[in-house]
Amino acid sequence: MILITNDDGIVAPGIKALVEVARQFGEVVVVAPDAPQSGQGHAITLHKPLKLRKVSMWEGIEAYECSGTPVDCVKLAKNVLLKDKKIDLCLSGINHGANSSINILYSGTMSAAMEASIENIDSIGFSLLDFSFDADFTGAKMYAAKIIKSVLENPLQDCKLLNVNIPACAPDEIQGVRVCRQGNGTWVEEFQEGKDPRGEKYYWLTGKFVSFEDEDNTENDIWALKHNYVSIVPSGHDLTHYKDIDKLIYLNNI
Amino acid sequence: MILITNDDGIVAPGIKALVEVARQFGEVVVVAPDAPQSGQGHAITLHKPLKLRKVSMWEGIEAYECSGTPVDCVKLAKNVLLKDKKIDLCLSGINHGANSSINILYSGTMSAAMEASIENIDSIGFSLLDFSFDADFTGAKMYAAKIIKSVLENPLQDCKLLNVNIPACAPDEIQGVRVCRQGNGTWVEEFQEGKDPRGEKYYWLTGKFVSFEDEDNTENDIWALKHNYVSIVPSGHDLTHYKDIDKLIYLNNI
Repeated sequence: MILITNDDGIVAPGIKALVEVARQFGEVVVVAPDAPQSGQGHAITLHKPLKLRKVSMWEGIEAYECSGTPVDCVKLAKNVLLKDKKIDLCLSGINHGANSSINILYSGTMSAAMEASIENIDSIGFSLLDFSFDADFTGAKMYAAKIIKSVLENPLQDCKLLNVNIPACAPDEIQGVRVCRQGNGTWVEEFQEGKDPRGEKYYWLTGKFVSFEDEDNTENDIWALKHNYVSIVPSGHDLTHYKDIDKLIYLNNI
Repeated sequence: MILITNDDGIVAPGIKALVEVARQFGEVVVVAPDAPQSGQGHAITLHKPLKLRKVSMWEGIEAYECSGTPVDCVKLAKNVLLKDKKIDLCLSGINHGANSSINILYSGTMSAAMEASIENIDSIGFSLLDFSFDADFTGAKMYAAKIIKSVLENPLQDCKLLNVNIPACAPDEIQGVRVCRQGNGTWVEEFQEGKDPRGEKYYWLTGKFVSFEDEDNTENDIWALKHNYVSIVPSGHDLTHYKDIDKLIYLNNI
């Protein structure tokens, strides 16, 4: 059983592409947000109830839309809809836009996959470096198929989560795959300021991503994508900064 | 300049406790959500504008409520309100409820502090293991003061983020501080099911936290808190599962 979700919502072309790939490998169930949830990170819905509605999206595929966040979708799938079933794989995406580098933190697509990985389910988040609605998923589908096939044949070991990003170039320009670390970078933010119809000031988030990686650092996803490789970052949910535990041990004595 | 935020909202007793502690150490500016934002994780608001309103909460303290998530609050503070100022320290909390172990992922309080740490600002998230509105913050304030003083005197090095949890015992029962790693555990979820006023089924998230740590594993925050220590986990935002990069390198050849 393969569970599919995303953060762009159940009607996004990216999830359709992923369903088309995944159904070649086994039974697919889709539980995805009923509205766009980009940037929702690992948000969960605590203070209001959730709705789940069965929908008719793809012939022969059981699919549900959920009123919650991407992580809510995985929790509901695991604990309610598929409670007595074994989920072999959770796939999230294909996201419209990059989730490389630090974007993994903000991404609902990656957080949904991470939530499944916390439940010990092999999980893969796929993202294409093209935000547009009519992005060309041809290359992304090709590599998603290869990666899904490999993971089903060789289940993941300690690390249960892969962050896969696919460059937006033509399929025949993709240079191959690079397993690598998360690149170091950040968003340089600006806020678009304006006045609402009642004259009250508002701020609207915008910005651009800036890499902190030198061109010499080849073993990270920013480099890989810049050079038209598909990047795969094995990812986890232990945020401990181990190297600094010893340095900070003096805090035990305050 | 000390920036303070939280996820329980600007009117929560926990942020009041933190303001009372922090103002002893320098100028404080508060930017916090105008409504509870627990469980918002690293969510940001992309698809609608944000409002910021100056409020009169604490005599002599500049304070704003924000219509967005905790991470939005930090982004607005850094890029708009305090654009030309140096933020020496970002404090988040004091959260009503634990953010130890895996809860760091779901917590708006910790994600706000993490967002500041990404911006290279020394950041500390504080959480008290008591969800209630009228929790006793006496012990939490005592240890928050010690930790803030120490970090201002000895700025953080590589790791810019501390996840501090304080046990809910009486202040004189706190055994001291343990700098340690993030404990391993998960939530065993159940959904409360019901029917809404129109007869449509709903699901409401609930569950309980389960530790995967043996009692022999003493160097983690679950153990520390169980034994009435204040836990401090140095935390980061690089989610790479380094140990598995080599194991998965065969994916380069698919």
